[in-house]
Amino acid sequence: MKCLIIAAGKGSRLCRKGNCKPLVPILGVPLLERVIRCAIQGENDDFYVVSGYQGDRVRHFLDDLARRCRVKITHIINDDWELDNGLSVLKAREYLDGPFLLLMGDHLFDPAILRDLTRRPIGEGEITLAVDSYTTNSLIDMDDVTRVQLENGKVRDIGKGLASFNGVDAGIFLCTPVLFEALERSAAIHGDTSLSGGVRCLATAGKVKALDIQGRFWLDVDDPKALEKAERVLLERLRDKPNDGPVSRYLNRPLSVRISRQLTRLAISPNQISLVSFLFSLLAAGLFAVGGYPALLAGGVLAQVASIIDGCDGEVARLKFRESDFGGWFDAVLDRYADAFLLFGLTWHAYGARADGITLLIGFLAIIGSFMLSYTADKYDSLMRGRIAGGRRLRVGRDIRVFLIFLGALFNQPFGALAVIAVLMNTETVRRVIVCRGKK
Amino acid sequence: MKCLIIAAGKGSRLCRKGNCKPLVPILGVPLLERVIRCAIQGENDDFYVVSGYQGDRVRHFLDDLARRCRVKITHIINDDWELDNGLSVLKAREYLDGPFLLLMGDHLFDPAILRDLTRRPIGEGEITLAVDSYTTNSLIDMDDVTRVQLENGKVRDIGKGLASFNGVDAGIFLCTPVLFEALERSAAIHGDTSLSGGVRCLATAGKVKALDIQGRFWLDVDDPKALEKAERVLLERLRDKPNDGPVSRYLNRPLSVRISRQLTRLAISPNQISLVSFLFSLLAAGLFAVGGYPALLAGGVLAQVASIIDGCDGEVARLKFRESDFGGWFDAVLDRYADAFLLFGLTWHAYGARADGITLLIGFLAIIGSFMLSYTADKYDSLMRGRIAGGRRLRVGRDIRVFLIFLGALFNQPFGALAVIAVLMNTETVRRVIVCRGKK
Repeated sequence: MKCLIIAAGKGSRLCRKGNCKPLVPILGVPLLERVIRCAIQGENDDFYVVSGYQGDRVRHFLDDLARRCRVKITHIINDDWELDNGLSVLKAREYLDGPFLLLMGDHLFDPAILRDLTRRPIGEGEITLAVDSYTTNSLIDMDDVTRVQLENGKVRDIGKGLASFNGVDAGIFLCTPVLFEALERSAAIHGDTSLSGGVRCLATAGKVKALDIQGRFWLDVDDPKALEKAERVLLERLRDKPNDGPVSRYLNRPLSVRISRQLTRLAISPNQISLVSFLFSLLAAGLFAVGGYPALLAGGVLAQVASIIDGCDGEVARLKFRESDFGGWFDAVLDRYADAFLLFGLTWHAYGARADGITLLIGFLAIIGSFMLSYTADKYDSLMRGRIAGGRRLRVGRDIRVFLIFLGALFNQPFGALAVIAVLMNTETVRRVIVCRGKK
Repeated sequence: MKCLIIAAGKGSRLCRKGNCKPLVPILGVPLLERVIRCAIQGENDDFYVVSGYQGDRVRHFLDDLARRCRVKITHIINDDWELDNGLSVLKAREYLDGPFLLLMGDHLFDPAILRDLTRRPIGEGEITLAVDSYTTNSLIDMDDVTRVQLENGKVRDIGKGLASFNGVDAGIFLCTPVLFEALERSAAIHGDTSLSGGVRCLATAGKVKALDIQGRFWLDVDDPKALEKAERVLLERLRDKPNDGPVSRYLNRPLSVRISRQLTRLAISPNQISLVSFLFSLLAAGLFAVGGYPALLAGGVLAQVASIIDGCDGEVARLKFRESDFGGWFDAVLDRYADAFLLFGLTWHAYGARADGITLLIGFLAIIGSFMLSYTADKYDSLMRGRIAGGRRLRVGRDIRVFLIFLGALFNQPFGALAVIAVLMNTETVRRVIVCRGKK
């Protein structure tokens, strides 16, 4: 389906550091790119973007983006960008002769909304508007939204000034070319050239259906406060990872998210972050092997820092739309090496203090147990997938492992840490085998 | 689709040790069970089995099989089992009013033939016969087969005595109820109550299409020589595993297949075989740790024996239709533990002879490298799947690892073996990461 995005206005409240609004970065990604990336995640690849203010810069940026994302972006130029946004839509008329999606260049949203919207059947003379009925949604600036009056699943009235309303226009439409006629009618009869004016014409005739998105994420980014809010929400969403273990959830993730926020501003790739975390772990293992409490403590702190940074690669990848299968796998491979080196360094340290076979054996069991836990994770997780919906299970994973190493270093108990890891990791592995056997 | 199997005859040439022919075991699985299991693999689950000679025993066995395999098996009794096999087919008439598959209770076959056959469109008055045009197929006993004369993809004539023929009846049919009429006509007009007689009636009328299976596996098991042949072929097919490394292919597999042949006669499960192999490895690791060349050598031999037995679990599972996801995974988990213990035992041994940090480090690198190789295997293999069609790649895997351990023990070079394993396994892991990165 074709996807029309209007991004012609100046958006003066967000012009800063010489960037016009569509190119203002949010966590390292320009606003308009975020909109297009979300639409791509919503399974669209044929875009028509109306540009106006600083149009040359915007179009140059879009050409580059089209190449990077391997999608088609057609430019539509609106030199009347200082006038109402309905005119931007009208400029696209000759390109769109069937159903199309209409998005605002400054509205972020959950891609699932697009998938739902495009699956809705639509009649020839109708349009469908995504409406949020959760008007208490904390993300909505009630002074600035376009209000909607709903009745029996249809939009009865729309406008900023509505006194009575039970929904909010989320700025996401599934349209047919009837919208163009409505915009012209609105201009001719009411002198109203806004998009809302056109939609109101159709609403009066009972031709605007509503898709209630019920509080799903969407956000109109039109001033610095909203931009700040957008960054906060995007960062908060990173923390909602059901696979995170307890140490990740309450210690690592809150810190890594703060680091990731800064990292998005740099030209560092997720894989480079994985490598940095790995090198920190190697250095920590080396410090363990040096011997003596100061080096042990320094190594422990460094290992925990590496574990925190290890969360940033995935976070930056999500924030900058750079997730890849290879990236996730590369990170996992480096983590296995890092774990093994940390535990070997700790064993070496403990053996230096207590040179008996038991120390070597316990160290070995800690290494093999940690490895087996990762080795069995995929199978176990896929088996358990349906069963964690109810409540969160306690996950024994890498976050706990490294935290135990850190505690062992902090309290100068390397042997104790190895013993706990050896017992915990191998017991959990055996438990998993037994559980999987029962489910075969 | 319904599946009719005729298994009423006495098959006196194969009656032995009190077993009637359908229940004669081939590598631990009764002949008739093999036919049904192959049909299940060919995506069938609704069976009609005609039993006659020793019918009570056969039906009792089938009831148990139906429960084990979770399929439906309907008994059809033919007390005239001493007469021609066409009568067995006729007994099923009331059960079959649409298209159905017809199989011989003593013909083994590649399940893919059934899948091809059922996908063939068939007219109401027609039947399709699986015909092998490779009449030089070494599995075919030319003195005993039913010969077929093909013309333009249709069977023109059929019979044991045909002088001129260009194909062989593989005993696998896709039928419609027209076959029953043909059998009655053949009996009434020609006094011929054999299945071939009925098929000949249809062939004369141009109603028998042929599916050429071109040498795909099928085998009529009707005498001790054919049974011997069947066992040999089933064992040979085990050796055709494209994922086998060189040591597996040329040393382990030829030996493990011989062991598996014996194991199929015992009531030992594949998972139990995995456990035995694992315990052998643990014992070998213990011998390594004892110290001294004799123990080292004994451990090395035991490790190699364990590696050979490690092939038997999968082989027995395939031969006895007991393959399972859990079984494969359980074996892999035990293998990882076994590898780690073997290498740790060897490191312990080497450290006893040469107590320096380098020995520990090399041992550690051998353990982590071996583990990483297994950890990266799934991802790498899935990436490479399309690319090994041309030729066989050299696979660095467990077979090579254990063989190197064996060689290290044999030549009393534990440190050398560890060093080679450490370098080989880690280099291959890094190579895989680089290859996967290039393909991302």
